[in-house]
Amino acid sequence: MKTQIEQAREGYISEEMQAVSQSEIIEQGILCGKIAEGTVVIIGGKHHGSQAVGVGEGLASKVNASIGTSTDIIDIGLEKEKARAAQESGADTLMELSVGGDLDMIRREVIAATSLPVGTVPLYQAFREATDKYGDPNKLTEELLFDVIERQCADGVAFMAIHCGINLYTVERLNKQGYRYGGLVSKGGATMVGWMLSNQRENPLYEKFDRVVEILKKYDTVLSLGNGLRAGAIADSLDRAQIQELIINCELSEDARKMGCQVMVEGPGHVPLDEIETSIILEKKMSGGAPYYMLGPLVTDVGAGYDHITAAIGIASSSRYGADLLCYITPAEHLALPNVEDVITGVKAAKVAAHAGDIVKLRGLAGKRDLAMSLARRDLNWNKQFELALYGKDARCIRDSRMPGSEHHCTMCGDFCALENANKHFKGKVKV
Amino acid sequence: MKTQIEQAREGYISEEMQAVSQSEIIEQGILCGKIAEGTVVIIGGKHHGSQAVGVGEGLASKVNASIGTSTDIIDIGLEKEKARAAQESGADTLMELSVGGDLDMIRREVIAATSLPVGTVPLYQAFREATDKYGDPNKLTEELLFDVIERQCADGVAFMAIHCGINLYTVERLNKQGYRYGGLVSKGGATMVGWMLSNQRENPLYEKFDRVVEILKKYDTVLSLGNGLRAGAIADSLDRAQIQELIINCELSEDARKMGCQVMVEGPGHVPLDEIETSIILEKKMSGGAPYYMLGPLVTDVGAGYDHITAAIGIASSSRYGADLLCYITPAEHLALPNVEDVITGVKAAKVAAHAGDIVKLRGLAGKRDLAMSLARRDLNWNKQFELALYGKDARCIRDSRMPGSEHHCTMCGDFCALENANKHFKGKVKV
Repeated sequence: MKTQIEQAREGYISEEMQAVSQSEIIEQGILCGKIAEGTVVIIGGKHHGSQAVGVGEGLASKVNASIGTSTDIIDIGLEKEKARAAQESGADTLMELSVGGDLDMIRREVIAATSLPVGTVPLYQAFREATDKYGDPNKLTEELLFDVIERQCADGVAFMAIHCGINLYTVERLNKQGYRYGGLVSKGGATMVGWMLSNQRENPLYEKFDRVVEILKKYDTVLSLGNGLRAGAIADSLDRAQIQELIINCELSEDARKMGCQVMVEGPGHVPLDEIETSIILEKKMSGGAPYYMLGPLVTDVGAGYDHITAAIGIASSSRYGADLLCYITPAEHLALPNVEDVITGVKAAKVAAHAGDIVKLRGLAGKRDLAMSLARRDLNWNKQFELALYGKDARCIRDSRMPGSEHHCTMCGDFCALENANKHFKGKVKV
Repeated sequence: MKTQIEQAREGYISEEMQAVSQSEIIEQGILCGKIAEGTVVIIGGKHHGSQAVGVGEGLASKVNASIGTSTDIIDIGLEKEKARAAQESGADTLMELSVGGDLDMIRREVIAATSLPVGTVPLYQAFREATDKYGDPNKLTEELLFDVIERQCADGVAFMAIHCGINLYTVERLNKQGYRYGGLVSKGGATMVGWMLSNQRENPLYEKFDRVVEILKKYDTVLSLGNGLRAGAIADSLDRAQIQELIINCELSEDARKMGCQVMVEGPGHVPLDEIETSIILEKKMSGGAPYYMLGPLVTDVGAGYDHITAAIGIASSSRYGADLLCYITPAEHLALPNVEDVITGVKAAKVAAHAGDIVKLRGLAGKRDLAMSLARRDLNWNKQFELALYGKDARCIRDSRMPGSEHHCTMCGDFCALENANKHFKGKVKV
């Protein structure tokens, strides 16, 4: 099987490219060119038994929802319910990040429960199996690691976050700068650092990067170069350790692309509002335009309980400056495993935010929906407003719960409605 | 009674300045200088029977919560409950914007129910009384208008949004550009435009601006120059009509300041993410640094039902670029009169966002809380985290609802906790 990037290089317009071209309003030829040069990836499609989702330059910003069991809460039914809720709420991709229970079974059931492309972090399962087998995650062998990656690809995983960029040199930079304010917050990253330190060996995902790429290519699984040293604190944002890892990830993204593997790069984490643009410029420049997958980012550390909002702020800014795939954050972040309601709240906040960024990034392509909404609002056309709102059903519920005496306006202003009053005077002036 | 700006010019440090200096960690002399030059205003204080709140350059961004009846829903008990809920959730100021019921009584009861400084929009009551008296808001007389302003000041209103900047010249600019995509969305603004057009007369609040200032000065009520032509649609942002009104408001702010009246300028509304900075630079430059009070802004038009989130995105960006007072938006915006839960949701989203902006605007002054939080998080000190979180009680509830087997970590990652794992390896490297 040829990967999308290989097909695009040959000028072949795949079924997936056709689907993305239609849903994004981008010409097939232009899209094909972007896939060929690696500034757009297509995640999922026929071979993954899922929708095909385009991520990258010139396309709408996409939102990923992460679900999965922890070692404390293992409930497959709940995870499948979260997967469905995420999809219904508008998530574009789903990551299945279980670390507790029968990981093969959970992954397969979640993939079957959704038509969204599903991503994973294979290091979780690799370290879990090493612990089960040898009683110590640091006894993970290369063979087991690559076996887990291939097993997950074979199940139809559409994209994979793999921590290839944390090498010994990067860990040295982390050591030199002194340990961090926010510690390490990537599960895969922290455990791989532990593995390297206790084995005094190079990260096999870095050392044998070609082998990683060969496996993913075989299944056209998109490689997402994991951000194992991402900042988990505003004070750690853009620190030397993280940028060192970014350099390596960007270098590897070029290698992967050359080998014909679709690839994107992952970013933080916790980032203050004025450093988001820098993070995106760096990634785009150093990687030669690989799609950027940002986790949040969260723009303050003190929002616990409201981190869907601190992430929405970061997502809007990231989307505006060119990030391509944004991971939602739920209100349970930093506190507990998200429940179904948390997943819904997180997806909706992220989608609204991604759209706010797209208004700037894509200009009219995204903004025309806002324009139509404004006209409907000005003309007090409520049904049209509910059609155009991102979450019209929810909006209608709020209005219906407090209906006004007159159907024209709403109970916010009652008959003191500015729109209604002004429309009287300006009827003749309306151009649109 | 001398106003705060008059006292500051004489180098007199008032009780209110002392209070603000303490709560903001700014030296009294520096604060006094900023009040004297008009880049900071103090809203409320002893004479208003409320807390004194500093708004402006070098101070933390403040959040206003607006409440009030509509003509459809009139329930004084509910409004008082909203006032208390807004204060408990962390609002810094409160606007009482009732348009239905006994307006004098509601205002007085709300002022009594809170220790926050309370603001109003006197045009609402003026037009209501004109309608009651003459059957037509356009029959509002100058005398009634100024009488309402003084009556509200005498009740202890600490700040007032008054639409002085919409003059005939501005309305001509609005006419010339053709009517707007989003219409007029300011109740006071739209009705005043109607008054001017039907009476073919200049806005008395502009024509007799000195009289407005004299009344407000007498009570040291802060004048907030209302944004009557604010954009209610992304497509209308920074349009000529709005910038024309801003020019006039900035000119008037200079006059008011010269006369010894504390003054700030109001801004929009609906603003795309890439125009927020421009809006703030313009206001600060043209007004000579008057504090900027932004309403939201909302960064997309299609977020109905989730406009506390679209506003949080706008508020964070506004706070970052220098806006000083930010009006919250509730999930009921554009749909219905907010209930108590909407008020709480709106205030919390806005406070979290304002803080995210302050991290950039005030650097270490705001960021030290985030730093302390990061250290507590790294060290898995949960009680400390709940102390430092903006809404620690809410955060604790989420954690408590899904407690882990071990008290150290949380149910998100269970015993696969990145922080815990990495702390083992880096114990010796921790500097802070």
